[in-house]
Amino acid sequence: MVTVDAGAAQDAGTGGPLGPAELERIHAWWRAANYLSVGQIYLMGNPLLREPLRSEHVKPRLLGHWGTTPGLNLVYAHLNRVIAARDLDVLYVMGPGHGGPGPVAAAWLEGTYSEVYPEVSRDAAGMARLFTQFSFPGGIPSHVAPETPGSVHEGGELGYALSHAFGAAFDNPGLVVAAVIGDGEAETGPLAAAWHGNKFLDPRQDGAVLPILHLNGYKIANPTVLARIPADELDALLRGYGWAPYVVEGSDPALVHQSLAATLDHCLDEIAAIQRRAREGDDGERPRWPMIVLRSPKGWTGPVEVDGHRVEGSWRSHQVPFSNARGDDGHRRVLEEWLRSYRPEELFDSDGAPVPAIRDLHPAGSRRMSASPHANGGVLLRPLRLPDFRDSAVPVTEPGTGAVEATRVLGTFLRDVMRENMQTFRVFSPDENDSNRLGAVLEVTDRAWTAQRYPDDDHLAPGGRVMEILSEHTCQGWLEGYLLTGRHGFFSCYEAFVHVVDSMVNQHAKWLKTTNGIPWRRPIASLNYLLTSHVWRQDHNGFSHQDPGFIDHVVNKKAEVVRVYLPPDANTLLSVADHCLRSRQYVNVIVAGKQPALQYLGIDDAVEHCTKGIGIWGWASSDGGREPDVVMACAGDVPTMETLAAVQILRGWFPDLAVRVVNVVDLMRLQDDRSHPHGLSDREFDSLFTVDRPVVFAFHGYPWLIHRLTYRRTNHRNVHVRGYVEEGTTTTPFDMCVLNGIDRYDLAIDVIDRVPRLQAVGAHHRDRLRDQVIEHRRYVRTHGEDLPEIRDWQWSGAAGPGTSGGGPLHEPEA
Amino acid sequence: MVTVDAGAAQDAGTGGPLGPAELERIHAWWRAANYLSVGQIYLMGNPLLREPLRSEHVKPRLLGHWGTTPGLNLVYAHLNRVIAARDLDVLYVMGPGHGGPGPVAAAWLEGTYSEVYPEVSRDAAGMARLFTQFSFPGGIPSHVAPETPGSVHEGGELGYALSHAFGAAFDNPGLVVAAVIGDGEAETGPLAAAWHGNKFLDPRQDGAVLPILHLNGYKIANPTVLARIPADELDALLRGYGWAPYVVEGSDPALVHQSLAATLDHCLDEIAAIQRRAREGDDGERPRWPMIVLRSPKGWTGPVEVDGHRVEGSWRSHQVPFSNARGDDGHRRVLEEWLRSYRPEELFDSDGAPVPAIRDLHPAGSRRMSASPHANGGVLLRPLRLPDFRDSAVPVTEPGTGAVEATRVLGTFLRDVMRENMQTFRVFSPDENDSNRLGAVLEVTDRAWTAQRYPDDDHLAPGGRVMEILSEHTCQGWLEGYLLTGRHGFFSCYEAFVHVVDSMVNQHAKWLKTTNGIPWRRPIASLNYLLTSHVWRQDHNGFSHQDPGFIDHVVNKKAEVVRVYLPPDANTLLSVADHCLRSRQYVNVIVAGKQPALQYLGIDDAVEHCTKGIGIWGWASSDGGREPDVVMACAGDVPTMETLAAVQILRGWFPDLAVRVVNVVDLMRLQDDRSHPHGLSDREFDSLFTVDRPVVFAFHGYPWLIHRLTYRRTNHRNVHVRGYVEEGTTTTPFDMCVLNGIDRYDLAIDVIDRVPRLQAVGAHHRDRLRDQVIEHRRYVRTHGEDLPEIRDWQWSGAAGPGTSGGGPLHEPEA
Repeated sequence: MVTVDAGAAQDAGTGGPLGPAELERIHAWWRAANYLSVGQIYLMGNPLLREPLRSEHVKPRLLGHWGTTPGLNLVYAHLNRVIAARDLDVLYVMGPGHGGPGPVAAAWLEGTYSEVYPEVSRDAAGMARLFTQFSFPGGIPSHVAPETPGSVHEGGELGYALSHAFGAAFDNPGLVVAAVIGDGEAETGPLAAAWHGNKFLDPRQDGAVLPILHLNGYKIANPTVLARIPADELDALLRGYGWAPYVVEGSDPALVHQSLAATLDHCLDEIAAIQRRAREGDDGERPRWPMIVLRSPKGWTGPVEVDGHRVEGSWRSHQVPFSNARGDDGHRRVLEEWLRSYRPEELFDSDGAPVPAIRDLHPAGSRRMSASPHANGGVLLRPLRLPDFRDSAVPVTEPGTGAVEATRVLGTFLRDVMRENMQTFRVFSPDENDSNRLGAVLEVTDRAWTAQRYPDDDHLAPGGRVMEILSEHTCQGWLEGYLLTGRHGFFSCYEAFVHVVDSMVNQHAKWLKTTNGIPWRRPIASLNYLLTSHVWRQDHNGFSHQDPGFIDHVVNKKAEVVRVYLPPDANTLLSVADHCLRSRQYVNVIVAGKQPALQYLGIDDAVEHCTKGIGIWGWASSDGGREPDVVMACAGDVPTMETLAAVQILRGWFPDLAVRVVNVVDLMRLQDDRSHPHGLSDREFDSLFTVDRPVVFAFHGYPWLIHRLTYRRTNHRNVHVRGYVEEGTTTTPFDMCVLNGIDRYDLAIDVIDRVPRLQAVGAHHRDRLRDQVIEHRRYVRTHGEDLPEIRDWQWSGAAGPGTSGGGPLHEPEA
Repeated sequence: MVTVDAGAAQDAGTGGPLGPAELERIHAWWRAANYLSVGQIYLMGNPLLREPLRSEHVKPRLLGHWGTTPGLNLVYAHLNRVIAARDLDVLYVMGPGHGGPGPVAAAWLEGTYSEVYPEVSRDAAGMARLFTQFSFPGGIPSHVAPETPGSVHEGGELGYALSHAFGAAFDNPGLVVAAVIGDGEAETGPLAAAWHGNKFLDPRQDGAVLPILHLNGYKIANPTVLARIPADELDALLRGYGWAPYVVEGSDPALVHQSLAATLDHCLDEIAAIQRRAREGDDGERPRWPMIVLRSPKGWTGPVEVDGHRVEGSWRSHQVPFSNARGDDGHRRVLEEWLRSYRPEELFDSDGAPVPAIRDLHPAGSRRMSASPHANGGVLLRPLRLPDFRDSAVPVTEPGTGAVEATRVLGTFLRDVMRENMQTFRVFSPDENDSNRLGAVLEVTDRAWTAQRYPDDDHLAPGGRVMEILSEHTCQGWLEGYLLTGRHGFFSCYEAFVHVVDSMVNQHAKWLKTTNGIPWRRPIASLNYLLTSHVWRQDHNGFSHQDPGFIDHVVNKKAEVVRVYLPPDANTLLSVADHCLRSRQYVNVIVAGKQPALQYLGIDDAVEHCTKGIGIWGWASSDGGREPDVVMACAGDVPTMETLAAVQILRGWFPDLAVRVVNVVDLMRLQDDRSHPHGLSDREFDSLFTVDRPVVFAFHGYPWLIHRLTYRRTNHRNVHVRGYVEEGTTTTPFDMCVLNGIDRYDLAIDVIDRVPRLQAVGAHHRDRLRDQVIEHRRYVRTHGEDLPEIRDWQWSGAAGPGTSGGGPLHEPEA
């Protein structure tokens, strides 16, 4: 392992780059932050210890994590020094988000806390409030939370610090993102993958990421893997990941201060040199960015031993090192000694405010990490310059005809968006951008790549804005970091494998929900997913690639942050995508196929349909504004096609059957308006779905989701849903529909079985439909493809007497 | 990078360890496997090319992945050589599961395929069928699927090959698990984390894992990261992960054969030496296990160029290298030349069977990798020796009293299970085994750990059977590998973060569902989850740690493979756990708290209750067998307590109110018996929940899941559900209930609002309940803890005139 020789840059007599005064000032800042951290965890009174510590000063429930906190505070103090010395713009990402007391303390010391929460003033009264509120009902969470100034990263789940850091650094050439990675966190897969982000970071146009791997040796109950491998093995690992690691190690604060200061200086010099070389004319080599390994005791400066057990430097300091300080005099004495060891009387003046030496350490204004605008991305956010998506529209002469790859059309729009926003927009995909037919974006940019390139590589370049790595976690983390720092993005993913990031989207949705309630947090751009290569068209991958359940997953999140769209064709996809790119503070999930498919709506109709989110397709309906015999509803491209094919069969056989076709683009319209802001009122819902007629609903995903969304509706008892019921294999597109009973024949049978006047006359037709299912199955098993009439099927109209004369968006008569 | 000098072990004149005949035989085997692979992707006739290739011989839809297949086949051929030479027991895990044609071809060559699928005989007719069925409707999937003999690993999702391999190797001292890892897969987080498995593998009692990182350079559309970093960087990375990597590189088959053979020999010698040293008396050093980096062209031996584009050695060979072999004569000529390049006439005899030279290469019987019993773990599975869980039971004198940590009680049972099954049972947890109160297992075993140890470490040892790494992915992968190879396990996880493995459990559930339909696949032990540290008791972690949605996720899977249990106390948890450990082919999800909580049922009552899965608690009910005024249902420990507290309030105020308390342990009982094998019939459901009385249901998870499960029931319109509605922060346990409206006061209000005769008289009481909510909120915000009467609440009976005299499991009168 390489260490930077602290003495090499030393002031005379100090053994390092820090002169005595500066060392003293940094140490005082660290003591102050640590004091305030312990105070938050333990105290609800007597914050400045101006009287002996009594039972009632201690919180009844002690909830927090001490172990990682002194490390976070140490790095914070040293970053403050270099920010001031170099006028740096630094964003601090704290992987061990459990250490919430640390950045809260720092923000209070820097004054930011009192600026955004004036009731927590920078004085004794404010300190009392600061302590009491921590991890307290009605107060603030114990983690680095959205409530914490200076943070874009909750960290409670672990694994995403480094990908968030890269996301923040992209397109921020002046920014240094210092990312502390806990050694527990480093065991997670997402973190392990994220080290490779250095193959995607362009030193010319992107900022720098400075990882600080904090080896404090222990997790909740075990040592960490990276702390228990030989130093040369860890060095090899990090070099193998492409970094130049520098080690800072020790438990003597004075020595560690000098070593960390020297190492930080060295790393920042290296970063500056890398950027200068790249920006003055690249030498073409992927730079080996520096990083720091900080090996320091867990729970450093805490009690060494309590009740005969080692605490400092052990997993026992992970949370609250001892828990009975309220009830046990001995424990309370340990606490008081611990707090007094920081010498608070030297750190805070008579008003309880930090003394000038501490206040002077940190930089001013938005250079304070706790006040970084990058950590409140909404303040930096500028709307995308959006070209007119109508320019990408496909002509639709007759509804239900054509063969268009919807996502390919979307690709041309994304290309135009990219062209207009070459510093603030990126697309992300786990190696599927082309597979998902979004290749047009490569007409105006490249795939980001700073690793080795060969002459026949296709659109690989440093500075590319198409972010592809075969890791959904990394793509998601990059995008989150990019959005949280005030930019825009678009994530395309195979539908089944977006489940890989289920837990990450949980955390992001929680972040959005919480920030909605924090006045000083400004709205950020939405997290936009395109889920394609979807369940119905996994012709060559089969069962393992079939899962439409991400929709179910996201609709468990708060209604105010979740939107789900199922555009049935290319023009509706364009309209939806435009809407999503303009939106703020949502998780938008768009599900759309990439295979050639029928088109239904011209662009103006598409916009109108998408604006409503749900509507009757009059051109396919035969209810003529009357109460229909049956409502055939559909959501998703394949279900829409099968529904229309069923309608065509039924209307051919039963010309006077009054069928109403309802297409759903915005799934949240199905919920009631009390449950979701997009929800239809009961009156509106009833006017579409009737109060008593059978509804046969063909849905893209698991069918019970429709029941979940509609169970309160008047007509719910008559809603019959077909969807994916977890039946699949490698087979033809239509066979997939048959396996799950969502094909045109089964849908038509469902109607015959549910419309009273067809039950009597339809027995023969039902048999014919069943025969067609059987014939299909025989055919595909012989020929390996669907029957030609299925493959080539297009809507040919169904001119029965009941045909509505309305336009494609004919509204119901309420 | 280290390469093994092929010449060092060479036969005279051959440039390597393989003599001319052996080289020829291996090469022939590889050609045969490649020929059969290409045939599967393209052909539906003329399998032996005994006539010129015509259009109708080519499948109409070409679906498969060629690129990775020749690499899988090459490794297969060479493993066969060493198996035969050394009488090895080898399990082959193929990370690039897309290369399905490869192992199918191998199994057919080895005869296994025809043994398990007699209709696919090892002759020309069988070969025709082998080709046609591949990726064909009614045939087999395109991936290495459950249908593929010799596989425990689908691989379609990517990321889990290495953790599966470790899982297979644990407690299999005689087994070598050869795991091919694609370089695309290597970019995923789960794979990146899994390399560290070598810190948990005990060379004495576990088998060996031999990773083979296959650098073929490309993914679907991009180069791979690991193929585009300098060789020394890759070497450092793998050494940093703790391995000794050996490189085999080239595109000349003869040279690669020699190099791979020499390297395999070297690695197997090293493995044997490591195991011998360890088993003869450990030197205490963590061994540096060998691994192989195989750098070979993607789509090797395929067409070099098609239509002017490079194919072999490029991403263009990822799937089907050219697609119009049926319609385009030129493409078909390329295909025919490609197939003939393998000289099939030398490989297959006049019957179409493999010639003896090929048949002789592979080992016999269960040494064939395609016939490995480890790949069909059910054949090796022995039931656990299960001690009587009743021995761990806690006494319950009065229902609704006591303060027991349910999972701690479970820990004693798991300890006893462990003690009796020290070779076939392990527990897995992401550093939470102790936190989840399962620490008792450490009384009989240790935590597995072969990295550095310090004297004051707690129960870390090589050979430990508690598997802890801070990676849910790795824990899940290890456990899946362990189960799939015929052993038993138990995974405890924080409820919120089990979402990290959502996608993995999808794949495992799909595997189970598919294997249920494959006669030669024998049932394996269930995948048992204990979800604890659950949503209601995240006192110190708050919102980021609150998500009960994993239940929603799993119930989307096939009913026949999913079970969900919510035992309300320690004895029911014991009974459920015992049941799950005995079960086969399920994903069992158990949700139970770890905090001190009330106990309700003595062990006999608990067993009876769990056997039914749902039941009326007569001791808490006051309906006396009559039709109740209200049904109060509950599922989960905290909802059960709040329900009972509400019942006590209501019965105190309204002594003649007929309340029926229904507790649900087995969530699937709520579904109807057509949807789930555990489902209640409508008659049974109606007898519990009535057909017209209000039901107030307090549920552990998101409330709409109960609606989803019950929407078909007669009385669904009267079912009112309270659950987690995504409101949370760091606060007290009871405040969490209040935030989500599932607390006793809100439940009691719900009853007053819904029981007609209470609506009139209850206005005053409703106000009192609202006041209590307000008082609570004021108290916790001042004192930081719940009101004493909440903290100390226990069921005190409620002896009103309506009290049922029945026992705790009083049955309804139907």
